Amino acid sequence: MGSQNNYQMKVATGEFGYILEDVPHLTDYIPDLPTYPNPLRSNPAYSVVKQYFVHMDDSIPQKIVVHKDTPRGVHFRRAGPRQKVYFASDDVRACIVTCGGLCPGLNTVIREIVHSLDYMYGVNQVLGIDGGYRGFYSKNTITLTPKVTNDIHKRGGTILGTSRGGHDTMKIVDSIQDRGINQVYIIGGDGTQKGAAVIYEEIRRRNLTVAVAGIPKTIDNDIPVIDRSFGFDTAVEEAQRAINAAHVEAESAENGIGVVKLMGRYSGFIAMYATLASRDVDCCLIPESPFYLEGEGGLFQYMEKRLKENGHMVLVIAEGAGQELLAAEIQNSKNEQDASGNKLLQDVGLWISQRIKDHFAKLSKMPITLKYIDPTYMIRAIPSNASDNVYCTLLAQSAVHGAMAGYTGFTVGLVNGRHTYIPFNRIIERQNKVVITDRMWARLLSSTNQPSFLGPKAVVAAKTEEVPPTQLLDDADQKTN
Amino acid sequence: MGSQNNYQMKVATGEFGYILEDVPHLTDYIPDLPTYPNPLRSNPAYSVVKQYFVHMDDSIPQKIVVHKDTPRGVHFRRAGPRQKVYFASDDVRACIVTCGGLCPGLNTVIREIVHSLDYMYGVNQVLGIDGGYRGFYSKNTITLTPKVTNDIHKRGGTILGTSRGGHDTMKIVDSIQDRGINQVYIIGGDGTQKGAAVIYEEIRRRNLTVAVAGIPKTIDNDIPVIDRSFGFDTAVEEAQRAINAAHVEAESAENGIGVVKLMGRYSGFIAMYATLASRDVDCCLIPESPFYLEGEGGLFQYMEKRLKENGHMVLVIAEGAGQELLAAEIQNSKNEQDASGNKLLQDVGLWISQRIKDHFAKLSKMPITLKYIDPTYMIRAIPSNASDNVYCTLLAQSAVHGAMAGYTGFTVGLVNGRHTYIPFNRIIERQNKVVITDRMWARLLSSTNQPSFLGPKAVVAAKTEEVPPTQLLDDADQKTN
Amino acid sequence: MGSQNNYQMKVATGEFGYILEDVPHLTDYIPDLPTYPNPLRSNPAYSVVKQYFVHMDDSIPQKIVVHKDTPRGVHFRRAGPRQKVYFASDDVRACIVTCGGLCPGLNTVIREIVHSLDYMYGVNQVLGIDGGYRGFYSKNTITLTPKVTNDIHKRGGTILGTSRGGHDTMKIVDSIQDRGINQVYIIGGDGTQKGAAVIYEEIRRRNLTVAVAGIPKTIDNDIPVIDRSFGFDTAVEEAQRAINAAHVEAESAENGIGVVKLMGRYSGFIAMYATLASRDVDCCLIPESPFYLEGEGGLFQYMEKRLKENGHMVLVIAEGAGQELLAAEIQNSKNEQDASGNKLLQDVGLWISQRIKDHFAKLSKMPITLKYIDPTYMIRAIPSNASDNVYCTLLAQSAVHGAMAGYTGFTVGLVNGRHTYIPFNRIIERQNKVVITDRMWARLLSSTNQPSFLGPKAVVAAKTEEVPPTQLLDDADQKTN
Amino acid sequence: MGSQNNYQMKVATGEFGYILEDVPHLTDYIPDLPTYPNPLRSNPAYSVVKQYFVHMDDSIPQKIVVHKDTPRGVHFRRAGPRQKVYFASDDVRACIVTCGGLCPGLNTVIREIVHSLDYMYGVNQVLGIDGGYRGFYSKNTITLTPKVTNDIHKRGGTILGTSRGGHDTMKIVDSIQDRGINQVYIIGGDGTQKGAAVIYEEIRRRNLTVAVAGIPKTIDNDIPVIDRSFGFDTAVEEAQRAINAAHVEAESAENGIGVVKLMGRYSGFIAMYATLASRDVDCCLIPESPFYLEGEGGLFQYMEKRLKENGHMVLVIAEGAGQELLAAEIQNSKNEQDASGNKLLQDVGLWISQRIKDHFAKLSKMPITLKYIDPTYMIRAIPSNASDNVYCTLLAQSAVHGAMAGYTGFTVGLVNGRHTYIPFNRIIERQNKVVITDRMWARLLSSTNQPSFLGPKAVVAAKTEEVPPTQLLDDADQKTN
Repeated sequence: MGSQNNYQMKVATGEFGYILEDVPHLTDYIPDLPTYPNPLRSNPAYSVVKQYFVHMDDSIPQKIVVHKDTPRGVHFRRAGPRQKVYFASDDVRACIVTCGGLCPGLNTVIREIVHSLDYMYGVNQVLGIDGGYRGFYSKNTITLTPKVTNDIHKRGGTILGTSRGGHDTMKIVDSIQDRGINQVYIIGGDGTQKGAAVIYEEIRRRNLTVAVAGIPKTIDNDIPVIDRSFGFDTAVEEAQRAINAAHVEAESAENGIGVVKLMGRYSGFIAMYATLASRDVDCCLIPESPFYLEGEGGLFQYMEKRLKENGHMVLVIAEGAGQELLAAEIQNSKNEQDASGNKLLQDVGLWISQRIKDHFAKLSKMPITLKYIDPTYMIRAIPSNASDNVYCTLLAQSAVHGAMAGYTGFTVGLVNGRHTYIPFNRIIERQNKVVITDRMWARLLSSTNQPSFLGPKAVVAAKTEEVPPTQLLDDADQKTN
Repeated sequence: MGSQNNYQMKVATGEFGYILEDVPHLTDYIPDLPTYPNPLRSNPAYSVVKQYFVHMDDSIPQKIVVHKDTPRGVHFRRAGPRQKVYFASDDVRACIVTCGGLCPGLNTVIREIVHSLDYMYGVNQVLGIDGGYRGFYSKNTITLTPKVTNDIHKRGGTILGTSRGGHDTMKIVDSIQDRGINQVYIIGGDGTQKGAAVIYEEIRRRNLTVAVAGIPKTIDNDIPVIDRSFGFDTAVEEAQRAINAAHVEAESAENGIGVVKLMGRYSGFIAMYATLASRDVDCCLIPESPFYLEGEGGLFQYMEKRLKENGHMVLVIAEGAGQELLAAEIQNSKNEQDASGNKLLQDVGLWISQRIKDHFAKLSKMPITLKYIDPTYMIRAIPSNASDNVYCTLLAQSAVHGAMAGYTGFTVGLVNGRHTYIPFNRIIERQNKVVITDRMWARLLSSTNQPSFLGPKAVVAAKTEEVPPTQLLDDADQKTN
Repeated sequence: MGSQNNYQMKVATGEFGYILEDVPHLTDYIPDLPTYPNPLRSNPAYSVVKQYFVHMDDSIPQKIVVHKDTPRGVHFRRAGPRQKVYFASDDVRACIVTCGGLCPGLNTVIREIVHSLDYMYGVNQVLGIDGGYRGFYSKNTITLTPKVTNDIHKRGGTILGTSRGGHDTMKIVDSIQDRGINQVYIIGGDGTQKGAAVIYEEIRRRNLTVAVAGIPKTIDNDIPVIDRSFGFDTAVEEAQRAINAAHVEAESAENGIGVVKLMGRYSGFIAMYATLASRDVDCCLIPESPFYLEGEGGLFQYMEKRLKENGHMVLVIAEGAGQELLAAEIQNSKNEQDASGNKLLQDVGLWISQRIKDHFAKLSKMPITLKYIDPTYMIRAIPSNASDNVYCTLLAQSAVHGAMAGYTGFTVGLVNGRHTYIPFNRIIERQNKVVITDRMWARLLSSTNQPSFLGPKAVVAAKTEEVPPTQLLDDADQKTN
Repeated sequence: MGSQNNYQMKVATGEFGYILEDVPHLTDYIPDLPTYPNPLRSNPAYSVVKQYFVHMDDSIPQKIVVHKDTPRGVHFRRAGPRQKVYFASDDVRACIVTCGGLCPGLNTVIREIVHSLDYMYGVNQVLGIDGGYRGFYSKNTITLTPKVTNDIHKRGGTILGTSRGGHDTMKIVDSIQDRGINQVYIIGGDGTQKGAAVIYEEIRRRNLTVAVAGIPKTIDNDIPVIDRSFGFDTAVEEAQRAINAAHVEAESAENGIGVVKLMGRYSGFIAMYATLASRDVDCCLIPESPFYLEGEGGLFQYMEKRLKENGHMVLVIAEGAGQELLAAEIQNSKNEQDASGNKLLQDVGLWISQRIKDHFAKLSKMPITLKYIDPTYMIRAIPSNASDNVYCTLLAQSAVHGAMAGYTGFTVGLVNGRHTYIPFNRIIERQNKVVITDRMWARLLSSTNQPSFLGPKAVVAAKTEEVPPTQLLDDADQKTN
């Protein structure tokens, strides 16, 4: 991304190694903006709250597993309402857009942005962008009011519609300018937040008084820095249904095998947590942990062993697991007639089910019964649970407080249990992944008793690769312990 | 089946066209069996019940939509306890076997057979056959007691295990004889009940005092004569989840299409009832109703229309729908390289999803987003709901009462809301199907607004084919109205 | 009711003892009404359905447990669309009212009346009466369209609001006349249907061309003649949650007692079916089965026995159980200071919990832990399950077909699995009750092992009282077997 | 407690104001204990994990909202496995006891202690204490194995049984000594943990090599220092059902009022979070926020206003709310006849429902319909959800790691998202409460629009009372933001 080149990250330092990685502010490029007292001062709900407004200097450390002599390290700005705001309520014209795949909680975030803007700040011009980024320039907007959004948190999906791609920076910023929008709330994943960063830069380049706030969305929980992404908790909960069903099917057949594919293209958090929560899983395969099928220490050998011991087994596989194996096979079959069915084998769940069937078909003495379950769309489409509902509410409120206070080019996120404002580049520069040399994964291995599928060489490599020398402890460990 | 040849159906007649299609009794071929007073006489729970025992002559009419001058027609023997029984409690050695695919309620039926035998009749020798028919001769039995089975109704699947096939009549009857079993409870579908009929005949041929009772199991509800099969209600309920998810996914995308495959190889009852219960479905395809994809009046044309009108749609397809279309396509591709992926296309859900994608890919102006959900194994594996729990209890009790009373070669079933004993041949000679020229299907068409996919010629053919001249009204209509 | 005096029931007879208890028709008092061909003839959904229209002579027997020489007995008219209708679509102005307590499925019935009128008959003037009977004359009406009602079946409660009482016949019929309403759909229980009967009579007296159709609603299932009332299935399902919780609480404490109060003021069907479905209940008390607390054979003695055996127990009590015991106690305490707390003791669940605590407090050797759960409003307020959704749909369609065909003064109901039109007086003249000398109750006693709480004298009395000599078998037995 | 007098807290200090509040260790009073290498070293699951063992110096700060010049403050020792352990696997004889009320997750904690001891440390002598503290000396123990506990996490309650009280320190420690137990795991709330502290002190006084580990349990989330207690998340989720039902009931009646009582004797966390998650609540009353019924600014005035605006309302009340009002009323009625019904009025839900009814009965123009729901035991008895399942697993593992490593007199707890060991006195010295002058409560007020029920004087008092001068920000704020 060019962003880091153009606009250096704002960094402040303090005592004993304190570092603050700050977020941009409208006054960074428009110095003499007027300010207003925060309307929350006169809100009855807040009049009784001492210290309601966040102190200017509040920050949250990223790393909190420390020793008595550890320097304090990177901090992020604490989210929350400020004493003064940079928008007059009547002047605000906000818009909300949702991009990418469905995730439980989208409607709650939409609802709470609308409600927070209205009830907290008296803002009542809120537009919904229809169908993702391309809606900025190709569709009419949707008027969002507290009344219209009142019950939407009880429904799955997004009332705004969503899509992938469609990001045309110039057209989008033109539309923002033309429609007089001055607060942009962008809900979406990795790619969407990269798009938000570019929109912010273009807005800055044009010198517009427009705040851009991102609310990171990924059901896979693969966004770095933050504790967890919204909808993840709901997804893990719902995944239990599929695992339970696979377990029942497997138990009821001789050499019954239940295979469940779960979300996780690049990271296996849902698979890992669903496995840990369920306790019925015998093997969990994730993108971060390579595995092989045949031979000593391979998957098939382990499966044969489990079937002999238990008579049945449950396998959970993240959608991104084993991609290098699939790629190799597809490469091999390229010369052959490319039947349309082959496309289906790019689905790792269908592929591994077929490979398992083929393998055991060769073992005449062990006829298996395999049942494959893909609950992906049943998980994505449910409404958020209570925990995610509260979480989405606080994310939305943080975003609104931040934009009203003139911050821009930021995402909101929970860091060590506190809501913070994080610069875009910190969450888009890499993905959060399960660290397979970490304790959480060890707990999973211990829970399933599956092999690590790693030779000693791979272990060494993993250890070397994953330990940046300047870190006290790796992120993932901090996040999940 | 040879059964009808060897052993004629027992039929009695009465006034005004009354016909009783009776079930066999042990005394049909072992005339001088001793009898015992029913132990329920001294059971405190029953001592207060007047008329607890079913009258010898109680019967239930199959057809009950009548005119004032309609002859009375076919009746079945009413199920329930009899005054005298043909087994001494201590002599009974019962066995239970479950065959075929999973279905909600299997464990409840097992539990209630065990509990009824024990608490009602003082029978405490009950064996479970492990893993379906082949368990009779290839595995050890499982001892079943009220304590062991006490909580199993809260779990899905079958604690006995199940399998398909494995029916070797001689070996099974040898095993029954060798183990001293004298009551055989067989829980399974169409094929399983055919097997039960053959076992009964072989037992009769050997002159054994062994009662054979079938409990018909089919999640598809495709067993004729009876009102509904156990587990069906639970399955329709659970299918709502998948349809809801498909609806949310479809609504959240532009030209979103949600495709849900539901069970029903030869009959579309689950698809039809789930569609009627949900109200979110735009098209429901079942085996009984042929359809075509291309051209005027075809599926694609209807889909384009719905997407233009609504912007999204939900399609429910029973697993056995469109088999003739699939067969034709697979035939065509036989000459091509037979990639393993092609096997997957025999799954109608994957196949139709692919065909829909291919179709709309050709229409440049209408890019779609299709999400496919196959909840089959998540539905099959759940425990039965309250309604099915009570139903399974009564089925099990009816089977036990019947066997104790010396009836054999029968299945239990609900006919017009009453529990009855039905001769095997009535439920295995043909399958229950959705009658697409009937009101229930018309209600569905009216609810989804989908076309009938029938040309005028097909309608005439269907009408001609389906109306047996001697019937007042077809079965399905009676059953579902 | 005076109704039976003024307007005799319409009865026809036929061969072999056939009796048809018919419902009134507009032409009974307005002879020369014009008729129209049923618009369904041209509805594409119905064009393929042979015999879509119900034959004029179709009827359904009330009693179907028969002997070969049993006379045919009482029949009801079959519900469904007729060849000709007595309303032109454009002239219809329908209204819907919901009265009494909440019940799962109310919104589905409302939705389906609106949808059926519109999609089947082209009727688009449908009014909702706000808040029960009194809404006819004291409130504005609510306009009901297919769009407004499209998703209401997914929510509990009634969008029309409801209330008890408020029935002022003259004002209601005035309002019907003044507003030009000519089809009245009345959803409610026992008392509401009595009110509907009176409204029908007044309309007849005024010679109005207004059809009155009742849809019987009672979560308690206490309406006679019909198989079950809508919402009952959902209620029994939901009651499982409370029973499970009570069981967990009881199991986790020493001498733990879980008490669950379920609906059922005059009949114990919910308590009985919930107990049968759950299998975790040790004692079920219902209004129909008197019991006593102290002494030999009393409740406390049984509880002590169960606690000694098992260490815990679960008691289910219907809200109307033990009313004579409560009444006696309240009478006794009348002389004392009438603290407001005493009102609470009229709640049988609170009362029996207190009495149990008092009893065991006296037994120093057996300290108990009692947990009381009253899930009433959590059960009533949920949306209907799939099974009830389909059922509500068919009830609504039957009502609409009936009213369009000119029938009036009728309720719709499922009789032996077929939808029928039943004269009001048959369902309001008495209540359906659990017959405690019947097999279903015996099954419950056998499932819980509780005593019958009946002395030999009571048994004899019950038997004598319950067996009308002309009946082959009692209704309840027919209904539940 | 005398404990703090006898055994001073272990405190270490470090750079820039770093304070470590450490937990006791067996070597504090038995200096020369032998050590063993941690068996996890050879466990295949852990062999691939770099840095699996927690560094001796790892600690977690309690306060993490900081400024650049804030001193570092109090830290807790990080939980997790240590390089060396103080017990040989074969010598360990562990016991587990559960005390107090039910809470979702108890069985998961039990299961995971047993499994962790076995699979991680090769310990297979684990005893369950039956029925709480008194089971130590009055009952037989229960043998706990991985097999016995394998599926218990899917059931609510505790398989060990539980009770209140029964804490006799001498008898308990005698029993521990006599049975040769050397690891004691105590799961329970506030009072239970106080008991655990005393047991630890007595063990220390007797110089026994026995580790005492507490796992804090409180469904109310009222334990200080830690982020949240297990089961809380599940409870908030389940509370939604009751609130939804109350909302449906209220909406369906004219001036419908739904009242839901939720757990929370001294703290209103469940009520607050359930209200925030639901969005259907109009008023939430908790113990921390005093309120009054009559007059200007009182509850009744607000209710009348809401009913006039909306026609219905939902009130959530924590069980400990308004205790001073109840106490005053009960005091007043003491002179009157003390009817047993009065006891019921000590239930705040019944009391406030009655008071509301009495109030509106006086207002002739506003007849209300009030429905009261108490879901307490339905919430407590459910199994833990996925999130709590994972959490319980980690708590159990932390406790086992700590005890094996020789720590004693500690509880495990999540602090800022990291698992830590916390000295007993920190969690028993006071209770965690909702801080009503804090932002979370302001959010709730803003969500419900209810008044604060605080006069200006109360606000000032609250502010003064709650702000300890040495704190940067109050705990609750840190915890919930």
